[in-house]
Amino acid sequence: MASASRVTVLGGGVIGLSVAWYAARAGFPVTVVDHASPHGGSWVAGGMLAPITEAWPGDEDVLALGVESLALWPGFAEDLDVPLNRTGTLALATDPADNEVLDQLHAYLTRMGRSATRVTRRELRALEPGLGPTVRSGLSVPGDLSVDNRALLDALRAACRHYDVHFTEDAEPPTAVSGVTVIAAGAWSRDLHPALRNVIRPVKGEILRLTARPGTLPPPRHTIRAHVSGRPVYLVPRTDGLVLGATQHETGFDADVTVGAVRDLLRDAETVWPAVAEYALAETSAGFRSGSPDNMPVIDWLAPDVIAATGHHRNGLLLAPVTARRVLSLLREGAPPREGGDS
Amino acid sequence: MASASRVTVLGGGVIGLSVAWYAARAGFPVTVVDHASPHGGSWVAGGMLAPITEAWPGDEDVLALGVESLALWPGFAEDLDVPLNRTGTLALATDPADNEVLDQLHAYLTRMGRSATRVTRRELRALEPGLGPTVRSGLSVPGDLSVDNRALLDALRAACRHYDVHFTEDAEPPTAVSGVTVIAAGAWSRDLHPALRNVIRPVKGEILRLTARPGTLPPPRHTIRAHVSGRPVYLVPRTDGLVLGATQHETGFDADVTVGAVRDLLRDAETVWPAVAEYALAETSAGFRSGSPDNMPVIDWLAPDVIAATGHHRNGLLLAPVTARRVLSLLREGAPPREGGDS
Repeated sequence: MASASRVTVLGGGVIGLSVAWYAARAGFPVTVVDHASPHGGSWVAGGMLAPITEAWPGDEDVLALGVESLALWPGFAEDLDVPLNRTGTLALATDPADNEVLDQLHAYLTRMGRSATRVTRRELRALEPGLGPTVRSGLSVPGDLSVDNRALLDALRAACRHYDVHFTEDAEPPTAVSGVTVIAAGAWSRDLHPALRNVIRPVKGEILRLTARPGTLPPPRHTIRAHVSGRPVYLVPRTDGLVLGATQHETGFDADVTVGAVRDLLRDAETVWPAVAEYALAETSAGFRSGSPDNMPVIDWLAPDVIAATGHHRNGLLLAPVTARRVLSLLREGAPPREGGDS
Repeated sequence: MASASRVTVLGGGVIGLSVAWYAARAGFPVTVVDHASPHGGSWVAGGMLAPITEAWPGDEDVLALGVESLALWPGFAEDLDVPLNRTGTLALATDPADNEVLDQLHAYLTRMGRSATRVTRRELRALEPGLGPTVRSGLSVPGDLSVDNRALLDALRAACRHYDVHFTEDAEPPTAVSGVTVIAAGAWSRDLHPALRNVIRPVKGEILRLTARPGTLPPPRHTIRAHVSGRPVYLVPRTDGLVLGATQHETGFDADVTVGAVRDLLRDAETVWPAVAEYALAETSAGFRSGSPDNMPVIDWLAPDVIAATGHHRNGLLLAPVTARRVLSLLREGAPPREGGDS
């Protein structure tokens, strides 16, 4: 068994920080190498913790892992003293095709034994009076949570510091004798180990941050998800506004926020929740999710001294607790013996 | 005649800097007090130098002053070594009502002896192949210029430093014996002298800065102005993109960029020039023009030791040379004797 005296975590996003915190709390000396990109997936994220409304036939493994991690979230958030929004998600339909998508999602979730309720136009208005006139039906998913992603990152950094995690911007070359390196650099992980080269890819997401203004409707209480003319859009409430997302582009590390993306996000959000027109557009950003071939994260040994914790795609925040827990198990167990070797 | 040994200019926008440069070059010792607001009118501006296409029946004084200043611009820009775009303006119509507006503007400009030519749909495509399919006719105005407003501000600051202008963020209380104060603080001027209180008002303008991306059409060569569904929009080309403006709101010093403003500007620009959808949205900003009751600037003595140079509204950049020249004349002549007094 390899001795894991020192743990070097490459990446200071939600996965890297969660791993560092768990490892340091368990007694490992930990260094986090963080280049603090403004395009990191967890900095740009909306903050939905939503395995249920993210679910889709064929991705049962993703749903199962997400549900496992969601169950850990209340304790995770409590340890970090970060508030959770527990109001749940409303998935909405504005035209007959969207409506059919909700029917399919509802049927699938029912088959999977998940709680979700079809709600009428009238019931929707009672839940969220600000919904637009073209919203025709919805699906209420009570289990989903959401969190302010930036408050979460702050809290994770504080928790790491509490356990003496060392932060640096300079990557020290990892060596087998000095400990274990955990690759948790999101989309950038693909360049940090050959085994990740053709597995991890950047998936660009553009997101807008809106703030309420004097006289505007307050933000919705629920996370709102909708398909508008086939395009997905979500509105995640914050104390003072909301986060509006997100596009999905497979165009490498292009970090531009395009006019077309902003136009579509604003138009679709306004269809669903017209009061956004009076909000201030406080920020436009693009971030990179770490895509993987099967939408499942890679959490495993890559070499006797290298662990991967990446490929979380749209679910980095959601999967942070389960990922940190699994990486800690790997660190404690040590790397398995090499096949055909005797080390 | 008052001795104007020292000139203190309140405001470091295009008017304040132009006045400071002219005064310092003429031998006055000059201090500029600049708080460098990100919402200053000339920092946020589009950079059109366009008295002709800004012209409208009833504003003949504005047109005359604008034309006088436009004639000074080539020399002004040459002294500063700032390039001008001389391609001219295309004013466009997308529906019958807009078309009528162009007819009226054309007739008015012809009456005023100004050069402007009605151009057909086909001629427009030859001039700017990127125009959208709904653009039905236009008015070509060859005399209008444009300038990169931020390059201009940089050049003016350099010119001021060349003549030993002193810059400070702290306003020293102006005293009659120590020289003359020039109030050139744009919309904020109203709070700097009682005589301006009910004369100058902030007029908010929201503006977007777009940059071209690999594979996109390059920016248009002309400044493009249009009415789309009655809303005015302009696209001012830059080397690497364009500036898209501008809203007009009389809501005090509210500096929010609203979702509704961005939505309208993007939609209207895309109607006129569809390639903007592929551009990057690099910046959204709000600035304050200094409105006045008759849309004419106030360039005059307010007291024996105070000159106003404000109220330039939509025309601050255009009117900078004529304003600097007039203020320099006032400084040289000194304040007129007080009515009923003998000082």
